[in-house]
Amino acid sequence: MPDTPPKAVVLLSGGLDSTTVLAMAKDAGYDCYALSFDYGQRHNFELEAAATIASRAAVVAHKIIRLDLGTIGGSALTDPTIAVPQADPAGWAATPADGIPVTYVPARNTIFLSLALGWSEVLGAQDIFIGVNAVDYSGYPDCRPEFIAAFERMANLATKAGLEGRSLTIHTPLIAMSKEQIVKKGTELGVDYSCTVSCYAADAAGRACGRCDACRLRAAGFEQAGVSDPTRYLS
Amino acid sequence: MPDTPPKAVVLLSGGLDSTTVLAMAKDAGYDCYALSFDYGQRHNFELEAAATIASRAAVVAHKIIRLDLGTIGGSALTDPTIAVPQADPAGWAATPADGIPVTYVPARNTIFLSLALGWSEVLGAQDIFIGVNAVDYSGYPDCRPEFIAAFERMANLATKAGLEGRSLTIHTPLIAMSKEQIVKKGTELGVDYSCTVSCYAADAAGRACGRCDACRLRAAGFEQAGVSDPTRYLS
Repeated sequence: MPDTPPKAVVLLSGGLDSTTVLAMAKDAGYDCYALSFDYGQRHNFELEAAATIASRAAVVAHKIIRLDLGTIGGSALTDPTIAVPQADPAGWAATPADGIPVTYVPARNTIFLSLALGWSEVLGAQDIFIGVNAVDYSGYPDCRPEFIAAFERMANLATKAGLEGRSLTIHTPLIAMSKEQIVKKGTELGVDYSCTVSCYAADAAGRACGRCDACRLRAAGFEQAGVSDPTRYLS
Repeated sequence: MPDTPPKAVVLLSGGLDSTTVLAMAKDAGYDCYALSFDYGQRHNFELEAAATIASRAAVVAHKIIRLDLGTIGGSALTDPTIAVPQADPAGWAATPADGIPVTYVPARNTIFLSLALGWSEVLGAQDIFIGVNAVDYSGYPDCRPEFIAAFERMANLATKAGLEGRSLTIHTPLIAMSKEQIVKKGTELGVDYSCTVSCYAADAAGRACGRCDACRLRAAGFEQAGVSDPTRYLS
């Protein structure tokens, strides 16, 4: 056992998944450094949620990097000309014919992990946590285990630390978990989900629409886990 | 031959190398989309240089993404508390004992390539050009061919385009070239190096210090290529 806890950079969006990951990283004994992005997302309230969550989790530091992905475009989450899909009668997975949701932000996880990599190198951290999960990777290419493995390999060639043999690990503790399991795990670790925001179209006060893919998936998770849903809905 | 030229995203810092790469990408028949970063670098004049260069090269678009790498710290190029090294009597390569210069910005090329990847996906471009070269990769881990290969592999797992079989190529035309060869190549392609800035400590008007590693390397390149050095120096 090292004298001081190892450091980990934890990607924290302020949503249900990343908040659970932060609790898991803490539970595993890491000193946590939370990293959020102000990337032109529509649901900007999530950054306030991230700050609250980071503070309650007593992270060593919480950094918010401003990065205007909206200038790149290509996603309903950052481009106001692309509509956020509402669930259709057939179910929550309202994705286009190619199976990749319009809420996919091009190269988002690659970009976020790259910035986490830069910070981890400055901190001397060898661990990065990211909340990608089984449900996401059904549609988002950058949520799949083979992507994460390729990123980790690249990262170990990219940095001074990697060259010097202090290799980096990308942890994806949620990757094989359902929303139900995630909610159960977080509840067990004492996570207060009332301050997390998952909705793609939350209002300025962080109230969820209850109709988008993210809302339906989240609500189903609480229901299946048998945990009372603390989400604040618009109606 | 396709009816319209293929699109390429070209990372453009406004320095000698990336300006040469842009000329090479144009010469190879690509429609070029130049990408620069306002990342808290000390030598901010290079962004004005990049805009001039992009305009003269008649790129289809030039995007400058603001990204404060200074908040991450760890480099003399973005952290005012770390001194930019001046050449010592032993030669230009004034690097610390571990062989990696203090001007190394943690994960910089990974971050820049990730954002280029995002934009290329939105554009439907399958080619990214970056001006890493032989001299750089002697000290910077993210300028080595094995890093570039690993990034390319990761990128093809990260994106919708990659999933659909439209694979991405990272072009590094300078990787095996000396500064002399780069200057010769650019001169042959009509590059006007007078508007490029390489200096780590240029003044507000873009005048070079003539003493930092980047300046000495650049000056030697012109001398060895037998090309008159158009750099504007402070003294």
